[in-house]
Amino acid sequence: MNNIEKVTNEIIAFIRNYYQENHLKGAVIGISGGKDSAVVAGLFTKALGSENVVGIWMPCHSKDEDYANAKLIADHFNFELKEFDLTNLYDNYVAQIKGCNIVNDDNLIDANINIKPRLRMSTLYYYAAMLSSLNKGVYIVPGTSNKCELYVGYFTKGGDNISDIQVLADLTVDEVISIGKYIGVPDKVIHKAPDDGLSGKTDEEKLGVKYSEIAEVINSDNPNVSKEVHEKIKKLHLGNLHKFNIATYRKNE
Amino acid sequence: MNNIEKVTNEIIAFIRNYYQENHLKGAVIGISGGKDSAVVAGLFTKALGSENVVGIWMPCHSKDEDYANAKLIADHFNFELKEFDLTNLYDNYVAQIKGCNIVNDDNLIDANINIKPRLRMSTLYYYAAMLSSLNKGVYIVPGTSNKCELYVGYFTKGGDNISDIQVLADLTVDEVISIGKYIGVPDKVIHKAPDDGLSGKTDEEKLGVKYSEIAEVINSDNPNVSKEVHEKIKKLHLGNLHKFNIATYRKNE
Repeated sequence: MNNIEKVTNEIIAFIRNYYQENHLKGAVIGISGGKDSAVVAGLFTKALGSENVVGIWMPCHSKDEDYANAKLIADHFNFELKEFDLTNLYDNYVAQIKGCNIVNDDNLIDANINIKPRLRMSTLYYYAAMLSSLNKGVYIVPGTSNKCELYVGYFTKGGDNISDIQVLADLTVDEVISIGKYIGVPDKVIHKAPDDGLSGKTDEEKLGVKYSEIAEVINSDNPNVSKEVHEKIKKLHLGNLHKFNIATYRKNE
Repeated sequence: MNNIEKVTNEIIAFIRNYYQENHLKGAVIGISGGKDSAVVAGLFTKALGSENVVGIWMPCHSKDEDYANAKLIADHFNFELKEFDLTNLYDNYVAQIKGCNIVNDDNLIDANINIKPRLRMSTLYYYAAMLSSLNKGVYIVPGTSNKCELYVGYFTKGGDNISDIQVLADLTVDEVISIGKYIGVPDKVIHKAPDDGLSGKTDEEKLGVKYSEIAEVINSDNPNVSKEVHEKIKKLHLGNLHKFNIATYRKNE
């Protein structure tokens, strides 16, 4: 992307316009310690002022390193970082489900993982309601998904795909990195291999393909990737389209 | 609606086709004791067989009467009804949030209420994953929103609007009732005033308008409702459109 400055300014203007048109006040952003939420938080502080951005660090059996990165991002962009620890809630939820004992939990690693982004979504919306009430103005929840993740459906339905405004959804991972560098996201955060902080694997290990390969498939009709990788990406893409469009019966009267 | 039989058969065929095309097995439906989930459950038992439908009753400070109705529905359509009590999880969640103490909770009645459908959504998807693993076939989550609710945005984003297939979304409340009567949903359920089971108010009290008035506005360019009611419905409709379309930045390269 050769026009980083232009795109960055467009995003900032897009945020400001949306807030003005809809008479909104602030943003509540889940800060994971990864680059996507860092870039979103940076862009929103530039658009709205740091005082109108609140980050929420929501650990759930999380790594100290992720908290250190979340703190680094908040300090850098000078927004308030609140903590809401989901570990107990999550543990009690899973224990109650296991108590129902209808199936061996070895098969349910992904089902357990999906609870976490859903609790995070619910918590972000709660904070948005609390801050709206406290500060007499509407806070909304920006999404942090990028175009590569969305293309292969790498998100939890009813979890991290639930948001009120999206600014990275049309940007591939390399473009997000370019903007991150341009607005000064700390190097340590930019260069961290993206992971969900949930499964112990990096995103690319989980997906079985690289984000650069997904970007290549998105950007080119004749992508420079192996046939096997191309097939894998197409399969992920088609297999997850249902997450975007709910099958709906319509009357044929 | 004069063609109840036709629409009912079309919905049943729509469900069967979707399941066949996507190689799916079963449905996990949140049973509230109200008519919408009852009609959805009835239609899915007719399409897939009762043995492939599992209802989940998820009380959260709920009324005994609602459980009695949920049981009545499950017995009538002969599907399994499981219970997952969300009361403790919800209470612990709210207590933890109150512990953060950033705002007086009197303003947060709706924020508290919104937690419940979000926990229910998360629970339904967990059961779908468990049952898929147990029964070696994919279970999905049907939605229960009707056209009137969707028109005025009467649902919790990230809660009861998250589903995999919708069969009532193009039907007004009176049409849902007609289908319910036609497929034999118990009278007691059909005639219960719809409420969220959460706020202690009926839907119509919360909305300030009647479902029949919403249907009139949906169906007619010149609806037979007072000017005041028409304005109120239009305001709800426009004010909640953001729940359907997330504002998204797109590159203008």
